Amino acid sequence: MKLCTQITLVVFAIAVGVGYMKYKSISSPLPIPKFDANAYWGPGKKESYKEDKSIKPFKIDYPDKVINEISDRIKNAVLPPPLEGVGFDYGVNSKRFSEFLDYWQSNYLPRWKSEREPFLNSFEQYTTQIQGLKIHYIHVKPNKNAANKKVVPLLLLHGWPGSVREFYDFIGLLKSQRSDLNVEFDIIVPSLPGYGFSQGSSKTGFGVFEMSVVLRNLMIRLGYDKFYIQGGDWGSALGSSISTLFPQNVIGYHSNMCFILSSAAGMLKTTIAATFPSFFVEKEYEDFHYPYGEKFSNIILESGYMHIQATKPDTIGMALSNNPVGLAAYILEKFATWTFPQHRSSAHGGLDLRKDLFDAYLDNIMIYYLSASITTSCRLYSEAFSLKQQEHKLDRIQTNVPTACARFKNDLAHEIDWVLQDKFTNLIQSNYYKDGGHFAALELPSVLYKDFVEFVKKVEK
Amino acid sequence: MKLCTQITLVVFAIAVGVGYMKYKSISSPLPIPKFDANAYWGPGKKESYKEDKSIKPFKIDYPDKVINEISDRIKNAVLPPPLEGVGFDYGVNSKRFSEFLDYWQSNYLPRWKSEREPFLNSFEQYTTQIQGLKIHYIHVKPNKNAANKKVVPLLLLHGWPGSVREFYDFIGLLKSQRSDLNVEFDIIVPSLPGYGFSQGSSKTGFGVFEMSVVLRNLMIRLGYDKFYIQGGDWGSALGSSISTLFPQNVIGYHSNMCFILSSAAGMLKTTIAATFPSFFVEKEYEDFHYPYGEKFSNIILESGYMHIQATKPDTIGMALSNNPVGLAAYILEKFATWTFPQHRSSAHGGLDLRKDLFDAYLDNIMIYYLSASITTSCRLYSEAFSLKQQEHKLDRIQTNVPTACARFKNDLAHEIDWVLQDKFTNLIQSNYYKDGGHFAALELPSVLYKDFVEFVKKVEK
Repeated sequence: MKLCTQITLVVFAIAVGVGYMKYKSISSPLPIPKFDANAYWGPGKKESYKEDKSIKPFKIDYPDKVINEISDRIKNAVLPPPLEGVGFDYGVNSKRFSEFLDYWQSNYLPRWKSEREPFLNSFEQYTTQIQGLKIHYIHVKPNKNAANKKVVPLLLLHGWPGSVREFYDFIGLLKSQRSDLNVEFDIIVPSLPGYGFSQGSSKTGFGVFEMSVVLRNLMIRLGYDKFYIQGGDWGSALGSSISTLFPQNVIGYHSNMCFILSSAAGMLKTTIAATFPSFFVEKEYEDFHYPYGEKFSNIILESGYMHIQATKPDTIGMALSNNPVGLAAYILEKFATWTFPQHRSSAHGGLDLRKDLFDAYLDNIMIYYLSASITTSCRLYSEAFSLKQQEHKLDRIQTNVPTACARFKNDLAHEIDWVLQDKFTNLIQSNYYKDGGHFAALELPSVLYKDFVEFVKKVEK
Repeated sequence: MKLCTQITLVVFAIAVGVGYMKYKSISSPLPIPKFDANAYWGPGKKESYKEDKSIKPFKIDYPDKVINEISDRIKNAVLPPPLEGVGFDYGVNSKRFSEFLDYWQSNYLPRWKSEREPFLNSFEQYTTQIQGLKIHYIHVKPNKNAANKKVVPLLLLHGWPGSVREFYDFIGLLKSQRSDLNVEFDIIVPSLPGYGFSQGSSKTGFGVFEMSVVLRNLMIRLGYDKFYIQGGDWGSALGSSISTLFPQNVIGYHSNMCFILSSAAGMLKTTIAATFPSFFVEKEYEDFHYPYGEKFSNIILESGYMHIQATKPDTIGMALSNNPVGLAAYILEKFATWTFPQHRSSAHGGLDLRKDLFDAYLDNIMIYYLSASITTSCRLYSEAFSLKQQEHKLDRIQTNVPTACARFKNDLAHEIDWVLQDKFTNLIQSNYYKDGGHFAALELPSVLYKDFVEFVKKVEK
C-alpha cells in the first residue's frame, strides 16, 4: 500500500507540475511583435509609390443612372418563395424581404438625391493616402464654443457588415455637450480599408494586425498621438490590436464586443467557467454566457457567413457584386438576426420591431453597393483567420490601456472578465445590458453613449 | 501491493466493460424507422391534392429573351479584381473567371438555341407527379435490338451543384453495347426534387430520408421494383438511403462518394484507423485518407458553402437568384477546386486542364439558372443536417444490398472499408483510382463506367 500511495503522489505531483508548466507556456504574456509601420498595400511595386499626404474633401455623389439601375433590378427580381410556415429560420424570409425591397424601391430610392445622400454627407468627409491605400473618413471637429472643455480625439471603428453609417446617431450624442462631461470629442470615423469608400489591399496578408497599423497611421497623419477608441465587431478587434501594438497612443479603449481569439489559456478558462458559472459571473447575467452548449450551437448556426468569407471570400464576393437585391438580403439578415435572435422564427424575423431603422439599414446597404466593396470587406475574414495572422498571437500580448467592455444581451458572443483580464490588465469597466444586440451604436446609441461616457469620466479622473 | 493490483484490475475490467457496452450502444444496428410513403410535400393542404399519375414528355425550351438577358448581365458585370499573385486560393479568381464569362457570352450562348438546348434535349425527358412534387427525369430506354440481353433498370442520382447533365457521357457509355456484358440498361435519371426541373418541397423537413422515398416512388410509378443505383455526392447519400429503407427494391448500389454520416462508432473507428493507418489501408492508398489532420483542414477549407447552405439556405439562395454571373462563380469554383485541388494556387485553378468540359459546366450552370432552383437545392443541406434528420440515424441501419465503392483521389473525402462495412454488410467491391475528383461521371466517365460494369458483372454472376 505504501508504495502504491507513493506512486500515486508522485504521479499527482508530476501531473500538477506538467499542467502548471503547460499552462504557463500557453498563458505567459508575449512581447509586442516587430512590424513594418510603412508596409505597402497598394497595387504594384512600393518603389514606384509616392504617398500623397494631402487631405482631400469627399462627398458621396452618384448619378441618377446608378440609382435607377438599382430600382430596375429590384423591380425585375423574382424571389424564391419561402417554405410554408417559416420565419427567418432558413435565412431571410423572401416574403418579408420583398416588402423591404418595395420600401427600398418605392420609398427610399426616390428620396436618395434629395434626402439620403445629403444626410450621409452631413458630416465632413475626407480621404488621404496611407501605406498605398486611399482611406476615407468622417471628421467631426470639436465645437469652437466649448473652449472651456478639454478636447480629446476619438476613433470610432465599425465592423462587418456595417460602415461609418452605424455611428451617425452616436456622433450626434457625442456632440450633445453634456454639462457633466468636461471633455469635447474630436471624432474620426474611418471606413475600414476595403470597406465602403476606403481602398482595399491589393496584397495578401492584410489582416487585423496590419489594418490596425494603417488606422493608427491615419491618426498620426491627422496629428493625433493620443486618442480614445470605440468599436464593436471588427472595430473591436482593431481597437484591441491598436491598444496592443501602440499603447502609447491610446487613452482608452471601449468595446461593445470584447473578446479574445486563439488563446489556449482563454479556452481553458472558458471551459472551467462554463463548468462552474456561478463563480465567475453574477447570477443575473449568467444567461449572457451559459448554457455553453446552447451558445455554441448558436455560434455554429450564425457563422456560416464567416466560414465562407474566411475560406472563399472572392467567390461569395462575386455572388454579391453587381447584385443589389442579393447583397441586401445577405446584409439585412445580419441586422435582423443579430439584433433579434429571439425572433428568428417570426415571419418578420424581428425587422418589424425597428421599422425606424430601415433607412439606416438601407443607407448601409447603399454604401456597400455603391462602393462595390463587398469582396474586399469579406477578405478581412480570410486574412484574419489565416495561419500567418494567428502567428502574431495578438491575444497573448497584454495591454495596460484602460479598457471598458459593454455587453449587449443579444450579441453573438460574450467573454467573461476572467478571460479578458489575461490580455486587458486594466479593465476598468465591465457592464451588462439586458437589451440590444450586435449593432449597439445603431440600435441603442444612447445606451452605448451613456456607457462610453461613464468610461471616459473614469479615465479622465 | 496486492490490493493495489486488485484495484487496478477491477478498474481496468470496469473500463473495458463500460467501454464495450458504450461501443455496443453506439454501434449496434437499428431497425428501419417507420415512414409515410405517401407524405405530401407540395404546396397547401394534402386534402385538396389529387395526384396526376400521368407521364408527360418534357423539353427544355427558353425564349431568346431569357438567353439575351444572361448575355447582357455578363456584359455589364464589373468583377472585383483579385489580390495580386493569387490563384483560386480566395475562391474563384476573377481574372480567370472573366475569360470564362467571355466564353459563355460570346461562344456558348450564341450556340444555345442551335446546339446546347438540342443537346440537353437529346435524351427523352418526362415529368410526373409524386407526393405533391412534379418530378423531372431523363429516360433512356433499352435498345430493342438487344433482345438477347437481360434488361436491368438503373437509377442515376446526381448531387450538388450538379444535375442530370453530369451523366450524359456516362449514359452514352452505358448504351455502348459491350459484348462482354450480358445486360442492357433501362436508365432513369431524375433531377433531384428542388434541383433543375424537379419541383422543390413547400414543406420543411424534406431531407435525404424523405427525398429517397420520393425517388423510390418514382421508380415504382415507372414500373421498376428492382433496380441498380449509381450516385456521388447527394446522389450517393440518396442511394444509401434507398438501399437502407427499401433493400427489396435495390439490386445493387454503386457509389463514387461512399460515406457514413453521424455515426459515433464510425468516428471512433476513423480515429483508431488514423492512428494506425497501415492496419486499415493498403500502403499505396494511404494518402487518400491520411494524414488525417491535413484531410480535416481541407474539409474545413472546402465546407464554407455547406455551412452557409445548412444554416441560411434562403439567404445564399437569394444572393444567387436573378444573378447568372454570381451563380456561375459559385458553381464553377466547385468544379475547379473539387476536381483539381492541387491547382488551387494556379492562376487558372485547374480549369485550363479541362477546357473540353467548359460546355458541360455551362450546360449545368444554365440548368440551375433557367430553372431558378438554386435556393431549393441549397435547402437540402439545411434539412439533411437538421437535428430531426439526424434522429433517423440512417447510418446505424444496416443494408445487405450488394454495394460498391469507387474512390477518386481528389474527391473531398474518403471513408475506409472498415467503417463502411458497419452499414454496408455486403460491400463486394472497393476500388481506388489515383486520378479524378468529385465529379467522376462528368470528368472521367469511362473510368467510372468500367468500375460500374465490373460491379454489375459481380452482382449478376
